[in-house]
Amino acid sequence: MTESGPEFAPVAPPDAEAAAAARARQTRLTKPPGSLGRLEDLSVWVAACQGECPPRQFSRPRVVVFAGDHGVTAAGVSAYPSAVTGQMVANFDAGGAAINVIAEVAGATVRVADIAVDCDEPLSAAIGANKVCRSSGDISREDALSAADTVAAIAAGRRIADEEVDSGADLLIAGDMGIGNTTAATTLIAALTGAEPVAVIGRGTGIDDHGWMRKAAAVRDALYRARTVTEDPVGLLRVCGGADLAAMAGFCAQAAMRRTPVLLDGMVVTAAALVADRLAPGARAWWQAGHRSTEPAHSLALQRLELEPIVDLGMRLGEGTGAAVALPVVRAAVATLASMATFDEAGISENTP
Amino acid sequence: MTESGPEFAPVAPPDAEAAAAARARQTRLTKPPGSLGRLEDLSVWVAACQGECPPRQFSRPRVVVFAGDHGVTAAGVSAYPSAVTGQMVANFDAGGAAINVIAEVAGATVRVADIAVDCDEPLSAAIGANKVCRSSGDISREDALSAADTVAAIAAGRRIADEEVDSGADLLIAGDMGIGNTTAATTLIAALTGAEPVAVIGRGTGIDDHGWMRKAAAVRDALYRARTVTEDPVGLLRVCGGADLAAMAGFCAQAAMRRTPVLLDGMVVTAAALVADRLAPGARAWWQAGHRSTEPAHSLALQRLELEPIVDLGMRLGEGTGAAVALPVVRAAVATLASMATFDEAGISENTP
Repeated sequence: MTESGPEFAPVAPPDAEAAAAARARQTRLTKPPGSLGRLEDLSVWVAACQGECPPRQFSRPRVVVFAGDHGVTAAGVSAYPSAVTGQMVANFDAGGAAINVIAEVAGATVRVADIAVDCDEPLSAAIGANKVCRSSGDISREDALSAADTVAAIAAGRRIADEEVDSGADLLIAGDMGIGNTTAATTLIAALTGAEPVAVIGRGTGIDDHGWMRKAAAVRDALYRARTVTEDPVGLLRVCGGADLAAMAGFCAQAAMRRTPVLLDGMVVTAAALVADRLAPGARAWWQAGHRSTEPAHSLALQRLELEPIVDLGMRLGEGTGAAVALPVVRAAVATLASMATFDEAGISENTP
Repeated sequence: MTESGPEFAPVAPPDAEAAAAARARQTRLTKPPGSLGRLEDLSVWVAACQGECPPRQFSRPRVVVFAGDHGVTAAGVSAYPSAVTGQMVANFDAGGAAINVIAEVAGATVRVADIAVDCDEPLSAAIGANKVCRSSGDISREDALSAADTVAAIAAGRRIADEEVDSGADLLIAGDMGIGNTTAATTLIAALTGAEPVAVIGRGTGIDDHGWMRKAAAVRDALYRARTVTEDPVGLLRVCGGADLAAMAGFCAQAAMRRTPVLLDGMVVTAAALVADRLAPGARAWWQAGHRSTEPAHSLALQRLELEPIVDLGMRLGEGTGAAVALPVVRAAVATLASMATFDEAGISENTP
């Protein structure tokens, strides 16, 4: 038995015909076949997502940072106080955070959504338009969310994806901001993969050994509480996830429903994506992994999703930064397939194997 | 005894004071210390190269593609005929090659220099302005170059670096185009590292097993011919390099002399760089490795230069494409250090370890 949650229609895969046309076109471009490596695969994926070969360069890539607090910070699992979540929302809004400047380099714009920040009032009406609650519960001893809030948070993420696609976004990146969110995300990944907590718990924002032990204890307690819902994605989000994670899951699943490609970021977003692929099986075909973070649970989740990260730069910040750093690589892939000359056009001799 | 070649003054390292200021500033930016991983190291390197913290975003990154033919293609070492080198020079000039479209995504411009293309006339006066000869010799049975042409080719690369820096280039990328050039580059790397040919010979543009065996034989013959000059960078370029490789070596060394950062591309450019660091010891401090190619000799050369590639995307095209794909990562690194808010500016609580 699984809890009732928002229903997702079956996810249709990206367009196989466009993918085949893209693979064929790659062999006619003025370079040895296969010599662009991963760029060729990425170009084929974008063509398949767009249903068109050659693909169009992205005109409106959009990063949405999902902000939320987590009661589990009371257990001493983070190097930063909860107050930082709200302070960082203001920093995103002012354009001073890493994701702001990296997105600008990549030609993407940034939106921040207060899903569950522990503050009296959202920073602005727009930022708080999809707010679900003030912090999620302490998953080491209570459920993260009520059943109603879980459904509301998934719906919030879906609504945000719809708004962005309806506004013309042609590539989506989910980012996370929330002190304590790696504890919840690690719990989700461990629950969905059966991993031993000690094998997957990382340092998050940079906790010391004592903090790591407190985090390990919190994850173990949360996993014990979640033992009856490991087969139930909505139940998992309710018991040991959080409103921000539920919203990210709804966002990633809905992007796939709307046939819009997604670049996943680090461990927190990928934990939500792992849940989203259970909510909407097949959604993963619409995603690529932007980067590999240093969090051990991230690699495990990527493996389970059968996604190979585009870059591996030792990053562990979240916010969507790892995906945004990878975006220019995807842009380069699109540009080669869309704009390079073919052997015929350039009058160049083909190889003579 | 080494052959007389162009003299390089001692290479001064990048600015240590700017590097220290950059390291300190990274800890004050609104993110956990170290959480941007490699981006933090790259930002420090750029600040040190520019002698200024925060660093300036690159305004004129420049790719120079060094084109040249190689007599060793007569030995059947490539999947493509020599005629392709000149045809690709026209493709670069027309903007249809992979490097053209990838450089555009990265915000860089492209120049192509005919150093040793086997054609009656250079494509244009500008492209042929630094031409040294019509093809380099077949290194499996004769020297690649005369002593005079070797010196002229190194000088050509230095002159091109000077021209670009004098025109305002603030980051340089060397690219290669030349059917047969991976045979010469592999020979250089094997000679400088003492590697067994069979351990480092790759498939180049995509040769079959018979082609691979011919290439291995050519590299072995060239290495035998080069046995007396392995300690002599100028002699190596003359005996088993080529004019394009000598020009790239001069270019990479001169960029360091001019305190201008360089992103190295794949195996061919990195072979030239390995020679350049012998010509001008210390030059490597001004370089970063853009990517890791699939050519086995590339990893060996990078290891010898103690450079860790920024991306690893299974590329093996040359032209500067791997470095150009990495450029936006370096731009992102610069942007974080230059434009992110500090904890003080944003009024954000610092961590409490």
